[in-house]
Amino acid sequence: MHKLVLIRHGESTWNLENRFTGWTDVDLTTTGIEQAKNSGRLLKAEGYEFDLAYTSVLKRATRTLWHCLDEMDRTWLPVQHSWRLNERHYGALQGLNKAETAKQYGDEQVLVWRRSYDTPPPALEASDPRCERGDLRYAGLAPEQVPLTECLKDTVERVLPFWNDTVAPTIRSGKRVVIAAHGNSIRALVKYLDNISDADIVGLNIPNGIPLVYELDADLKPLRHYYLGDAEAAAKAAAAVAAQGKA
Amino acid sequence: MHKLVLIRHGESTWNLENRFTGWTDVDLTTTGIEQAKNSGRLLKAEGYEFDLAYTSVLKRATRTLWHCLDEMDRTWLPVQHSWRLNERHYGALQGLNKAETAKQYGDEQVLVWRRSYDTPPPALEASDPRCERGDLRYAGLAPEQVPLTECLKDTVERVLPFWNDTVAPTIRSGKRVVIAAHGNSIRALVKYLDNISDADIVGLNIPNGIPLVYELDADLKPLRHYYLGDAEAAAKAAAAVAAQGKA
Repeated sequence: MHKLVLIRHGESTWNLENRFTGWTDVDLTTTGIEQAKNSGRLLKAEGYEFDLAYTSVLKRATRTLWHCLDEMDRTWLPVQHSWRLNERHYGALQGLNKAETAKQYGDEQVLVWRRSYDTPPPALEASDPRCERGDLRYAGLAPEQVPLTECLKDTVERVLPFWNDTVAPTIRSGKRVVIAAHGNSIRALVKYLDNISDADIVGLNIPNGIPLVYELDADLKPLRHYYLGDAEAAAKAAAAVAAQGKA
Repeated sequence: MHKLVLIRHGESTWNLENRFTGWTDVDLTTTGIEQAKNSGRLLKAEGYEFDLAYTSVLKRATRTLWHCLDEMDRTWLPVQHSWRLNERHYGALQGLNKAETAKQYGDEQVLVWRRSYDTPPPALEASDPRCERGDLRYAGLAPEQVPLTECLKDTVERVLPFWNDTVAPTIRSGKRVVIAAHGNSIRALVKYLDNISDADIVGLNIPNGIPLVYELDADLKPLRHYYLGDAEAAAKAAAAVAAQGKA
């Protein structure tokens, strides 16, 4: 039996401001830092050990991991970054306030953009200053690999190669893995692992900064999963994520 | 021409308390954090970019690197840890106050232990609670690879394989490298790069938290080296390091 731990980053400045973030590289709030540290304390208290950690190339996930490893006194663990673990790209919505966008376009349209499996938000123009194609961290990618918008289906399609080629072989080799990532890159993984339908994934929300443990069999099929710490608090936090896109 | 940047970690709690540290995993002081951030600011201001970073498995070096990358807005850079970049092991002196040890054994004996190329301090017993052989971060090593004491010659011998097998090929491949490490692992590298004699290396001191730039030719022979920022401050900081072991 393998254990995989998934952690959505702690609250970010744009979570707090209720803005669509996507690939915008915003930092954690002090609450987010505290959530990240608390993840580390929970993992330490429960005796979790890891052989390596994966995270995105976005600082809210990286910093969450750093604080978590720090609390575990495991700052020496190998960390591998991948753009494939980035948050879903939010296209032209990046930077906009979720409630204001809902006021303008209606709750239903925003829910479609936020949670529809295969309808992406309006795309960024490649010439938009918000477009990440000139960012050094993506210099190794072909321009078309840097999205201008994504629906969750697109996110699943770019997360899965990282799971199949990198994470799954590592877990199968017996290494204990923690992944610090984002709401939608984690939803993409969970959808795949638990074989959740395109319809049902819409209702699944991942709370910030609470370790989500997957117990996997030898074929990496999930046996069960649970949040560490206070289950009720985790459920409330997930419900709060679901409510963010309402006017 | 290649540029290699070496950074000794910022001031640690045991630098401040004037204790021999070695492989003891003490943290940075607030001054040390500020030095680390300042390294990052200097590198950013001078337009330095890196493709990857190396550091030890000790948190004062890792945290120095993290703060430095943070200030450069490069938290997404790949970081590789190696025990081979650890500080020189200080044997049974680890934890002892440098000035008190000098009072007890004399300045000359302490200078020998601190700076002699081939005389190690008294060894730790393997049963000493300070011995690192049970530490998880060294679990992949044979017990005898985890030293009980080291002279600088020993440190050179375990740093160089990492240079030859990992760092040098990476630099030759055109990648831009920063190494955040320790006074003696950096002295070991500098001794090798500049072909400094066993006698002359005794007088060489590396200040905390100031980027040291080596310009290397295609064969990785040094063309020149310099500290970033205020040269006078760097010289004063190096002189202060030299004075630490005096009663």
